[in-house]
Amino acid sequence: MKAAAIIGGGVIGGGWAARFLLNGWDVRVFDPDPDAERKIGEVMANARRSLPGLSDAPLPEEGRLSFHAEMADAVAGAIWIQESVPERLEIKHKVFAELQAACHPDAIIGSSTSGFKPSELQAGAARPAQIVVTHPFNPVYLLPLIELVTTSANDAAQVARASEQLTELGMYPMHVKKEIDAHIADRFLEAVWREALWLVKDGIATTEEIDEAIRMGFGIRWAQMGLFETYRVAGGEAGMKHFMAQFGPALKWPWTKLTDVPEFTDELVDLIADQSDAQSGAHSIRELERIRDNNLVAMMRALKGQDWGAGALLNKQDTRLRDGSPLTGGVDEIGDLSQPILTVARAVPLDWTDYNGHMNEAKYLEAFAAATDRFMELIGCDAGYIASGGSYFTAETHIRHLAEVHAGARIAIRTRMLVGEGKKLHLFHSMYEGDELLATGESFMLHVDLKTRRPSPPSREIEAAMDQIRSAQADLPYPDGAGMAIRQPG
Amino acid sequence: MKAAAIIGGGVIGGGWAARFLLNGWDVRVFDPDPDAERKIGEVMANARRSLPGLSDAPLPEEGRLSFHAEMADAVAGAIWIQESVPERLEIKHKVFAELQAACHPDAIIGSSTSGFKPSELQAGAARPAQIVVTHPFNPVYLLPLIELVTTSANDAAQVARASEQLTELGMYPMHVKKEIDAHIADRFLEAVWREALWLVKDGIATTEEIDEAIRMGFGIRWAQMGLFETYRVAGGEAGMKHFMAQFGPALKWPWTKLTDVPEFTDELVDLIADQSDAQSGAHSIRELERIRDNNLVAMMRALKGQDWGAGALLNKQDTRLRDGSPLTGGVDEIGDLSQPILTVARAVPLDWTDYNGHMNEAKYLEAFAAATDRFMELIGCDAGYIASGGSYFTAETHIRHLAEVHAGARIAIRTRMLVGEGKKLHLFHSMYEGDELLATGESFMLHVDLKTRRPSPPSREIEAAMDQIRSAQADLPYPDGAGMAIRQPG
Repeated sequence: MKAAAIIGGGVIGGGWAARFLLNGWDVRVFDPDPDAERKIGEVMANARRSLPGLSDAPLPEEGRLSFHAEMADAVAGAIWIQESVPERLEIKHKVFAELQAACHPDAIIGSSTSGFKPSELQAGAARPAQIVVTHPFNPVYLLPLIELVTTSANDAAQVARASEQLTELGMYPMHVKKEIDAHIADRFLEAVWREALWLVKDGIATTEEIDEAIRMGFGIRWAQMGLFETYRVAGGEAGMKHFMAQFGPALKWPWTKLTDVPEFTDELVDLIADQSDAQSGAHSIRELERIRDNNLVAMMRALKGQDWGAGALLNKQDTRLRDGSPLTGGVDEIGDLSQPILTVARAVPLDWTDYNGHMNEAKYLEAFAAATDRFMELIGCDAGYIASGGSYFTAETHIRHLAEVHAGARIAIRTRMLVGEGKKLHLFHSMYEGDELLATGESFMLHVDLKTRRPSPPSREIEAAMDQIRSAQADLPYPDGAGMAIRQPG
Repeated sequence: MKAAAIIGGGVIGGGWAARFLLNGWDVRVFDPDPDAERKIGEVMANARRSLPGLSDAPLPEEGRLSFHAEMADAVAGAIWIQESVPERLEIKHKVFAELQAACHPDAIIGSSTSGFKPSELQAGAARPAQIVVTHPFNPVYLLPLIELVTTSANDAAQVARASEQLTELGMYPMHVKKEIDAHIADRFLEAVWREALWLVKDGIATTEEIDEAIRMGFGIRWAQMGLFETYRVAGGEAGMKHFMAQFGPALKWPWTKLTDVPEFTDELVDLIADQSDAQSGAHSIRELERIRDNNLVAMMRALKGQDWGAGALLNKQDTRLRDGSPLTGGVDEIGDLSQPILTVARAVPLDWTDYNGHMNEAKYLEAFAAATDRFMELIGCDAGYIASGGSYFTAETHIRHLAEVHAGARIAIRTRMLVGEGKKLHLFHSMYEGDELLATGESFMLHVDLKTRRPSPPSREIEAAMDQIRSAQADLPYPDGAGMAIRQPG
């Protein structure tokens, strides 16, 4: 079992501990803070709920976590030592001296420093070659970026080994070969932070407005393409050089308070255009636009599921779009109950298609589940009812896939109630594109008490709504394809 | 039908046109560029595939698109006029004069300018009150942010009306009340761009490294929480004031080339801490951490589906985690075929749970579909085979939900082949947490020719692999619950 020593167990050290532990390493912590164990426990609780499921494969068994009163004890047997002590050089130097007196000389000592250069950390060390910067981003157990910053004192084999270990932990080590204050990412964060302070101080924007200006716009873009690839796409077919010719002169304008600008020489333009070709040239601008749009749709829809940020905005917009349509309101607000009831009307989103170019089979159930949710709302099992302690759990589902459907298609689902009495609810959904039947989804549900998680009768209002639908639909023939088992061999 | 006039039809004007059209507005375009129609057509093609499905409700019928040789003709009947001509003040002034001579005096004239202040645009206009800045972000048809910048010439009712129209279009109008060069978001982009130019020029990082430094780290964070809320969480329970006390001094260091910094007075610290409380104080830090983690997991998993950026990294990590396990390789690499075959082993991710606190019903099928994909790979229907033109399409699925499962649970799926001959493949999946059977999923598939989309026989290799499994599993009893219809009423 590999072992890592964690020196300093705050939010960052704790995040490292979680990353190692959940990837099967033993973790040995040194932190004089009497609260260290509690603090790391809190980070671990967050990490345990979020990291393992991020993967579609099983993580190894969790390693063992131990706390040690002496640094020398913590580093025993450790092949990776991660230093996350306060950002004061004299403290770091003292810690490195103590570490190097006790640790294995081949162990990698990574520093979480956001500001110091590795040469500053290595100065005066017994074995400078052992020390590198491995600067992580919070939350360390989820975000992949590690700035691996080295000096000429670090040999190539050691850097390769560090990079390999970080990669095994699911991280993205970016080797910064030419050291610089604050490395790379924090220089950008610093620039934005300074500009933000001016905006708040000058009363132009509040902290909330600044945050919205980020996460409703370029923040979503930057989660999937960075600065240069984004601008390459914005420049269109004319390419990166054209974009810079347009955008370059703006640098002369006094927009930001931050005004030291490199000379916009042909040499710099060529350097950037060439690097951009090497980075993104494998895709045409048209391809990059579609990749970008696929990513944006997938992420924004992911945020919808969390009802947060741009996703919360989209949910509000959906409510507005449904307002006054048959897709909202209770059973009394639907005109005609005698026919299957419209429960879903939507376009097939980009993130619902698979490698065959058509709607992924799991998404049929997502659409049918939305139809079931709408039907539940219609009979009075809405968010308020669920909060009061009752809901329906699905016991069985049967889906028949009858025709293909592609991204962008407008689909509608109409729902028949086959059984709706007592705790039983049996629905039959039919999905159409225009007149074409694409699929059917049959669902059998039981009403449950959310406290006991056991079947229980629904409210009288729900029973009454089900009665109303049952009598309205009494004359409909039993639907074709309902109540069937999957076809037998032969 | 509402009508909008689009003045200037490049990437930005085209994006506006798409946003209006897909929300049911008629759009009247003026652009002297002979390629305008083609260019807008290209933007529309991108928008049609991405915007409608972003919504879970149906968008209205698309409006009518028309092109006009005269500005006066384009603005006829328009209640919104969006100007997106080149960023030169004298051009903008000329356009506004022509627009105001022809348009309805109550129409809103929004300018897409990224650099000019509204007072500069309004200067010399016939009706300054009619002109506002409505600055969008590319792609305009997807990203919600609009900086709505006004001056004292704009009355409150007009601003409210503009804000309402933008909200109806699914956008997020942010009213910037105190005008400033480049508004808000572009000041940040500008600061980052300048710093990036230095890094490239000084040979510290390439364009690709800079992009990775953004999208593997803070870019993902900023898609869901901005600068201040992110730092509030990082500061932990000690709060925003504590965070600033720690981070403040770093501003004195010469990190960036951009060094004009506001004085870090108590007044500024209090201003920010108070605004941050107003913005985020409704949630405890612990809640914000979990909200953040839910968002990050959901977005990173969304990027996995697109195999891009941090998502592509996660996919690579999954491949490494599966390496050498029974979750990879062909039929000959699995030791024991005589028992149901392990096809999925994973933890339940945060984005798979629903309002009941347990795994969403649609996600059972996602897990079973992954099991089916793995089984297909096992018998030789892998990515290469699919690229060569053959695949399996699911015809029917039957799921029984037997027990609840929560986020973080380690689940495993074992798969029985009930039928595997000719074009037919009938699988029976059992999902477990430990020894507890959580659900079963029965799938009936047909092998298809991806060109004709019709059933066709699979390759000999696949037939041989199915034969091997069939004879190994011949003695297994028919599984409990297979071949059943959904229970009948009574």
